[in-house]
Amino acid sequence: MISSDSPGKSIAFYFDLFSPFGYLASTQIEKIAARHGRSVEWRPVLIGITVLKVMGMNPLPTYPLKGPYLAIEMERFAALYGVPYRKHGLKGHNSLAAMRCFNWIKSFDAPLAVEFAKRMYAKLWVESIDITPPDISADVAATLGLDRARVLAALATDEVKQSLVRKVDAAIANGVFGVPFVIADGEKFFGNDHFWLLERWLKHGRWSPEDGI
Amino acid sequence: MISSDSPGKSIAFYFDLFSPFGYLASTQIEKIAARHGRSVEWRPVLIGITVLKVMGMNPLPTYPLKGPYLAIEMERFAALYGVPYRKHGLKGHNSLAAMRCFNWIKSFDAPLAVEFAKRMYAKLWVESIDITPPDISADVAATLGLDRARVLAALATDEVKQSLVRKVDAAIANGVFGVPFVIADGEKFFGNDHFWLLERWLKHGRWSPEDGI
Repeated sequence: MISSDSPGKSIAFYFDLFSPFGYLASTQIEKIAARHGRSVEWRPVLIGITVLKVMGMNPLPTYPLKGPYLAIEMERFAALYGVPYRKHGLKGHNSLAAMRCFNWIKSFDAPLAVEFAKRMYAKLWVESIDITPPDISADVAATLGLDRARVLAALATDEVKQSLVRKVDAAIANGVFGVPFVIADGEKFFGNDHFWLLERWLKHGRWSPEDGI
Repeated sequence: MISSDSPGKSIAFYFDLFSPFGYLASTQIEKIAARHGRSVEWRPVLIGITVLKVMGMNPLPTYPLKGPYLAIEMERFAALYGVPYRKHGLKGHNSLAAMRCFNWIKSFDAPLAVEFAKRMYAKLWVESIDITPPDISADVAATLGLDRARVLAALATDEVKQSLVRKVDAAIANGVFGVPFVIADGEKFFGNDHFWLLERWLKHGRWSPEDGI
C-alpha cells in the first residue's frame, strides 16, 4: 500500500463564510486532516465572485430541482456530522467584511483567524445573525482579544480590501469554484460529498479499486 | 443499529446514455445494491431536458473552472472503479434514439433493457462510437437477439416516443436533475460522489455520526 501521509504537510481548505456547505465542512476538515497527520491551511474565497462572475452561474440554491436537493443535503450533512445548523432565511447579506477580517487576522495569526472563522460560521449558520456589518466581525474579533477599534480601522483600509482580492484571484487561478474546496498534494476535492475521496487520497495517495470502494 | 436492508426492495437508478458520469456509475450500481440485498430499477432520463430546459443551465462541462474539474473527476472515478473510459470528443450527438430504445425494450424485458444500456454505454464511452443514429441501437439490440427491423419500426412510432417523454416527466416530478441519480426509500443521491452516502443509507437507514463518518 502506497501512503501519501506526510506529517506536517498542509492541505488547503477554501471556504467562504457565506456558504452553508462551507460551515458544515468547517466542522470536519481538521478532524479529517488530523487522522492522516496533516495540518489545514484555511484560505478565503468569495463564491459571489467565483460562481456568479467567473462561472456565469446563478446561486445554485435558486435553480429548479437543484435548489430543493441542496436544501436536503444541508440537513443531511448536519445530521451526519451531528452538528447544529439552522437555515437563516436572510436576504441581501454578504460575507465581504467578515472574509476581509479573516484574511487580515491570518496575516499575523493564522490559528486565531481560524478560530475567528469558526465563531463567525456559528453566528450565521447556527444563531442566524447577519454577518454583513463590519461591527459583527469586530465584536467577534474582540471576543478573541483583538481591539475592536483596530479591527474596524483595518477593515476600512485599501490594503486589507486588496489583499482579499488577491487571495480570491489566487484561488480562481488554482481552479477553485465552490465551497468547500480542498486541494491536497495538487488533488482537488469539491463538496462535503468528496470528503470520503479526500480521506482515500490522504490514506492511499492514488486512485485504485485495490484500495476498496 | 437500525438497518433498512430490504431484500427485493428496488432502488431507482436514473441514467442517460449521454452522460460519462452515468456510464461510470452504471459499472457500480448493481454491485452496490447487491451488497445490501437490493435490486436496481434502471429508469431513463434526458439531461438535455432536465439541465438545459428545466434548470436553465448550460451543459456543466462548458462552465469555466467547473468544466476542467469535471474532466478530472471522470478520470478519477474511472481509475477508482478500475473500468475503461475514453473521452470521445464527439459533438452534436444525442442519446434520444438510444434512450427510446432502452425504454421500449424495458416495456417487455427489463433485464434485457439493462444489458442493452450497458452495451450502449460501452459503445459511446469506451469505443467512442456515436450512438445518435437509430441504426446503432438496432445493431446493439440485434446482438441481444432482437429483430433489427422490429427495433427500427418501434423507434419510429409515436407511442415509443411519447412513452419516453412521460418517463422523463416522471423523473423530473421526482426531483431528478442530473445523472447518475439514485432514489432509495425516498432518499435522493446525485453523483458518483454520493455512492458512499447511498451505501451508508442502505446499511443504516439513517443519518447519524454514530455510524461513523
